[in-house]
Amino acid sequence: MNLQRIADKLGITVDRLQSLQDTKISESSWPEPQLLRFDKEISGVEAGTVIFKNGEIVWGYPSIRRPLMLEAGIKRHFIDSVAVEEKMNGHNVRITSIDGDIVALTRGGFVCPYSTEVATRLLPEDIFEEKPNLVLCAEMVGPENPYVSLDVYPTDSIDLYLFDVAQKNQRGTHGVHKTHEIAEDFGLKGTAFFGEFPRETAHKRIKEIVIKLGRQGREGVVLKDPENRVAPLKYTSSESNCNDLAIAFSHYNDYALDFFLSRAVREGFQSVEWQESVEERRERARRIGESILLPLTETIKNKQQGETIMQRIKIRVKSLATARGFEYHLRRCGIRAIFDQPLPDDDGYTIGITKIIMSTNDKTEALLNGEMW
Amino acid sequence: MNLQRIADKLGITVDRLQSLQDTKISESSWPEPQLLRFDKEISGVEAGTVIFKNGEIVWGYPSIRRPLMLEAGIKRHFIDSVAVEEKMNGHNVRITSIDGDIVALTRGGFVCPYSTEVATRLLPEDIFEEKPNLVLCAEMVGPENPYVSLDVYPTDSIDLYLFDVAQKNQRGTHGVHKTHEIAEDFGLKGTAFFGEFPRETAHKRIKEIVIKLGRQGREGVVLKDPENRVAPLKYTSSESNCNDLAIAFSHYNDYALDFFLSRAVREGFQSVEWQESVEERRERARRIGESILLPLTETIKNKQQGETIMQRIKIRVKSLATARGFEYHLRRCGIRAIFDQPLPDDDGYTIGITKIIMSTNDKTEALLNGEMW
Repeated sequence: MNLQRIADKLGITVDRLQSLQDTKISESSWPEPQLLRFDKEISGVEAGTVIFKNGEIVWGYPSIRRPLMLEAGIKRHFIDSVAVEEKMNGHNVRITSIDGDIVALTRGGFVCPYSTEVATRLLPEDIFEEKPNLVLCAEMVGPENPYVSLDVYPTDSIDLYLFDVAQKNQRGTHGVHKTHEIAEDFGLKGTAFFGEFPRETAHKRIKEIVIKLGRQGREGVVLKDPENRVAPLKYTSSESNCNDLAIAFSHYNDYALDFFLSRAVREGFQSVEWQESVEERRERARRIGESILLPLTETIKNKQQGETIMQRIKIRVKSLATARGFEYHLRRCGIRAIFDQPLPDDDGYTIGITKIIMSTNDKTEALLNGEMW
Repeated sequence: MNLQRIADKLGITVDRLQSLQDTKISESSWPEPQLLRFDKEISGVEAGTVIFKNGEIVWGYPSIRRPLMLEAGIKRHFIDSVAVEEKMNGHNVRITSIDGDIVALTRGGFVCPYSTEVATRLLPEDIFEEKPNLVLCAEMVGPENPYVSLDVYPTDSIDLYLFDVAQKNQRGTHGVHKTHEIAEDFGLKGTAFFGEFPRETAHKRIKEIVIKLGRQGREGVVLKDPENRVAPLKYTSSESNCNDLAIAFSHYNDYALDFFLSRAVREGFQSVEWQESVEERRERARRIGESILLPLTETIKNKQQGETIMQRIKIRVKSLATARGFEYHLRRCGIRAIFDQPLPDDDGYTIGITKIIMSTNDKTEALLNGEMW
């Protein structure tokens, strides 16, 4: 690798790059293509940025900030108008082509073998021939998404929705217009576009959109500057916040603590901003309380009945090598998963996977046996 | 100070004591008597242990562990029977006499000037003359408790309930019998004693007691071995868990995150152990949800209306020096409090205090102005 060229592209000195290589940048030698990964943001380089062994760079997707007061947040942040798109609940991938092969990178900068196979299947063959430097930023969603399995989207398997585009070796993304243009040109699905609204009144329309999305079990919205002049913001439905609480509390010992607090606080600000009546606020409180207590008691009761605390998911693959690769990928991500025997079908294999929720499983068993908290 | 004698009493070497003195033991030179404080447990010496400048030691009160499953926890922990006492909700002090002066130590090992004045007022004059080495472990409770102000106990000011006794320069406490003996001999109130129950059936009686205490807004119980052979355990009512959540969420940015998780998880285990019906469980969920959302929205609305997020308390003191001392004590504990002008009454002064909940106040203001979370 030509360190000088890479350092130039990253906007840091060669010395700095070399010292980071010894300490802060991880090497990921599997699967091909090999790459260097920025685990965390360092020296202004986004987390998830990768440098491939051929010297090409794919920048990490910047994390999107969240206002808790929608109206005030929009007025503070946007310039004149706000484009509103759906925030989908799946996993975020960056898809590009390296030395002629399609590669799907996870948020953290790993090549995910399963996402790569899905992307290869769903994308038109010629997209990277026509646009060799293109990076597609997409959300993979659906029941066969092994990271976030949800059946609220119009697929019974896994699908891919474009939400932004970027270029290899270039920082930044191209935003709303370019993304929808690329989606149209290549017949890709883009995340739903709800319209462009003036900054002063956008919050009213967004409230309606978010309430409607929430009723459908969907997550929320991403707010973008139509001309890509300022960073996007995100805002989620109460149902999505509570759904997060439910997942967290059914696996109460496996999740980070700040998960809980942030979801609850979002609910408080949304309730105040939307000037809820006493009745509406009590209904929201009931939803929060039940999202915490009911999944928690289910988990405890299941363990009491001798069950293992786990999560069942299902993937479909064309090649068994993808499944083996994905098994290894989950392991390196610290997820303990047991893969069933593959069931062959017309076009590949269906494989059931059991994710073991280790920490909650062991803690619940200990507490049921009278151990102290 | 004779380091050798102190090290012997602590059960550590002089070398170890000297190295700790340089690093881990804090000096507290105000108010008199000066002392050395163990901030944290080190080398088997409990947190809150203090060494007075005259060489006398008062051991920290050991923290009490909590089973989440009452029956299993009791069976695992106790030998044959379980003495059940009320766990009161106030602040825990250790009161003793050093060089002829009464001193009340907080949990962390500070001399609290206010608690010291209250103890001096409430204790019989001769107690430390008759028992110069006695350490009274007591809970201070009531509406004029500036740390935890609650009006569920039979006092309209502040009162003191003995829950254990110890000796200066001796590790360990003396347990149930000795405590009630001392209380009786000196006319002190002890924490309510609900009886002694066989290990096998104690959980049934304790459940009834805890439910009754909860209905009265009281905290819960401490379970003790009648012969003091094993450490005590604690167990709290759902109302107390939810009350903690309410306090935490009305000051959501000032509390430790693990506060939230632990209260919620307790509720889950209690609901399962008590085999609640669907209706009872929904009622508990409603209580949890409302304990989170309603105080949180109150705080946000108050700030929206331009109020400062704060807490009003009131103390009564005989001497203005105590109030000034207490003001200084709060400051060194990191609590920002503004003291009103003292109002003289028959027997001293009443002083209103405003505790500023700084972090939540500032964070809420920022979020209301559209800042991102």
